[in-house]
Amino acid sequence: MADGDGTSGPDRPRVVITMGDPNGIGPEVIIKSLADARLTRYVDPFVTGSMAVLRRHAERLGLRDFAISRYPDRSGRIVVFDVVPEEEPAVEFGKVTATAGRLAMMSVEKATRLCISGEADAMVTAPLSKEAINLAGFNLPGHTEFIASLTGTTSYTMMMVSDSLRVGLVTGHLPLWDVPKHVTKEAILDKVRVIAHSLQQDFAVSHPKIAVLGLNPHAGEGGVLGREENETIKPAVEAACHEGYLAFGPYPADGFFATRAYLSFDAVLAMYHDQGLIPFKTLTFNTGVNFTAGLPIVRTSPDHGTAFDIAGERKASPDSFRTALYVALDVARRRTTPSAAAESQAS
Amino acid sequence: MADGDGTSGPDRPRVVITMGDPNGIGPEVIIKSLADARLTRYVDPFVTGSMAVLRRHAERLGLRDFAISRYPDRSGRIVVFDVVPEEEPAVEFGKVTATAGRLAMMSVEKATRLCISGEADAMVTAPLSKEAINLAGFNLPGHTEFIASLTGTTSYTMMMVSDSLRVGLVTGHLPLWDVPKHVTKEAILDKVRVIAHSLQQDFAVSHPKIAVLGLNPHAGEGGVLGREENETIKPAVEAACHEGYLAFGPYPADGFFATRAYLSFDAVLAMYHDQGLIPFKTLTFNTGVNFTAGLPIVRTSPDHGTAFDIAGERKASPDSFRTALYVALDVARRRTTPSAAAESQAS
Repeated sequence: MADGDGTSGPDRPRVVITMGDPNGIGPEVIIKSLADARLTRYVDPFVTGSMAVLRRHAERLGLRDFAISRYPDRSGRIVVFDVVPEEEPAVEFGKVTATAGRLAMMSVEKATRLCISGEADAMVTAPLSKEAINLAGFNLPGHTEFIASLTGTTSYTMMMVSDSLRVGLVTGHLPLWDVPKHVTKEAILDKVRVIAHSLQQDFAVSHPKIAVLGLNPHAGEGGVLGREENETIKPAVEAACHEGYLAFGPYPADGFFATRAYLSFDAVLAMYHDQGLIPFKTLTFNTGVNFTAGLPIVRTSPDHGTAFDIAGERKASPDSFRTALYVALDVARRRTTPSAAAESQAS
Repeated sequence: MADGDGTSGPDRPRVVITMGDPNGIGPEVIIKSLADARLTRYVDPFVTGSMAVLRRHAERLGLRDFAISRYPDRSGRIVVFDVVPEEEPAVEFGKVTATAGRLAMMSVEKATRLCISGEADAMVTAPLSKEAINLAGFNLPGHTEFIASLTGTTSYTMMMVSDSLRVGLVTGHLPLWDVPKHVTKEAILDKVRVIAHSLQQDFAVSHPKIAVLGLNPHAGEGGVLGREENETIKPAVEAACHEGYLAFGPYPADGFFATRAYLSFDAVLAMYHDQGLIPFKTLTFNTGVNFTAGLPIVRTSPDHGTAFDIAGERKASPDSFRTALYVALDVARRRTTPSAAAESQAS
């Protein structure tokens, strides 16, 4: 241990961090987060990626003497697990390249496998570029689908998490025209189950209450502005209740946030990307964290992307990434110390 | 005049108020707003509707002695222009009836005609029920289309207005599946023109900057998540700029509100109902006002509906309605005193 005031295990989770795209702001926010000594009092972090890339970013940040050690040696401020044999993968700040995409994905793969094997208790993923991973031959929309496939998970959902609001999505990265046909009774029911289970297991909410939004303006206004509420969403909510879940809705999305109704629920299920992310981001100002509910491993990520336009310029804020680390830590503790979760549930 | 400290004319606009659905909270918020003597120092208000209905609501509010006079007599706290001959139209709190729908629409028609003829300088409309007006034989989505048709207006847009944010919509009360095909280059361009002109004429903004949102998640992410941004929205923004408008975008809607980018613009043009109303209501908590941009007359309305569930229970807040009155007053002054607007523009 760098500071020797803790031991590994449930009280001090081992968190693996993926480096993200080497040409984006991922390495920068990792270094800035881990430079804060308070963090390493609570967590044993290490990074899967490339020591050379992290050195290059540290240098750019004016931290030429920043101690970086090679896993499992933990003498450095940053501990790195090299996933590529090359000694010096080039960093090309702001560039989209296949090399960068491949390195980013190898880093995710290694971190996932370490979580599956139990060598790590949680993972936090720095941002990668969809374009770069596509160039590298990975035909995937992003991290989440890759991690789900590696862990053999079919039911999962991205959940945005902040102190006052948790938002899950029925559909994610789809063009708007393609949304309605993916809003099915089964999809809604599946997300309610995943979110409810995650709230119990990961957030110590014993009887989670979930608000389900409508798809159309005014939640369809009784059918005049769309039929999905009556034909799909209401039946899904009823089926969820029948299974014992505390699901409510569908609510008209605009009024739901206007009246701060979300404060009465443990999570909100939105039907599509912008319906969930607009209010979440409007309320949390980029300080939220993404949590993937439904995975057998613990995974969080920050609320931002690679930000190629400011890569290497020292401007990136580590706030969201640091919060993602703390959320991963909290969830890992709840999962590895079931009694703590049980106590919270009993209260 | 009730308090005799002003004269009619540009400095003291005559504002006509439509009563709204007699069975909803419209009459209640009108009475509560006009009970505040400060308001009538600045404005000459009168209500089109039914004296009997307003008496019934005043009674329910415990204001049995509340002075109500018949237009043009202005001795009462409330001045009413009766649009129906019946002496006592029944009030059935919370009920959807054809009688109520017909009375609400007659009140809107009369108020609109008074604005067209110049007998009133502005109108504020209390909420009516789409269901009730349909029962009464009006096959219209609501007020706005009716007022537009009475004034012969084809290019107009609902604009939500608060101190820090103005939001216009390209499409309004449409099911979500029906939105993409109504997002056309011509529709966007038309709304940019209407909003820009209204910002100059009605809000004294000399060089209005308008932000245009994308339709799809991440504004289509270069085409991967939808093609409307590249094929429709960008060309519309370019065409608007070519015509001399300060139009920008398309912006990804979630990030736009996360970073408070809207503070740098005079108005935001959203592509559909919830995309505009979710952030507006999240930020303004039901204190916003609807303004119909593009009409030859001045028209505002509160941010809420008939609220049949609390009709007659004295619970309705008059805040949004009162703000709608003040916004109508401000806009009417700017239109009737062009020099005031010109001064603001020059500053």
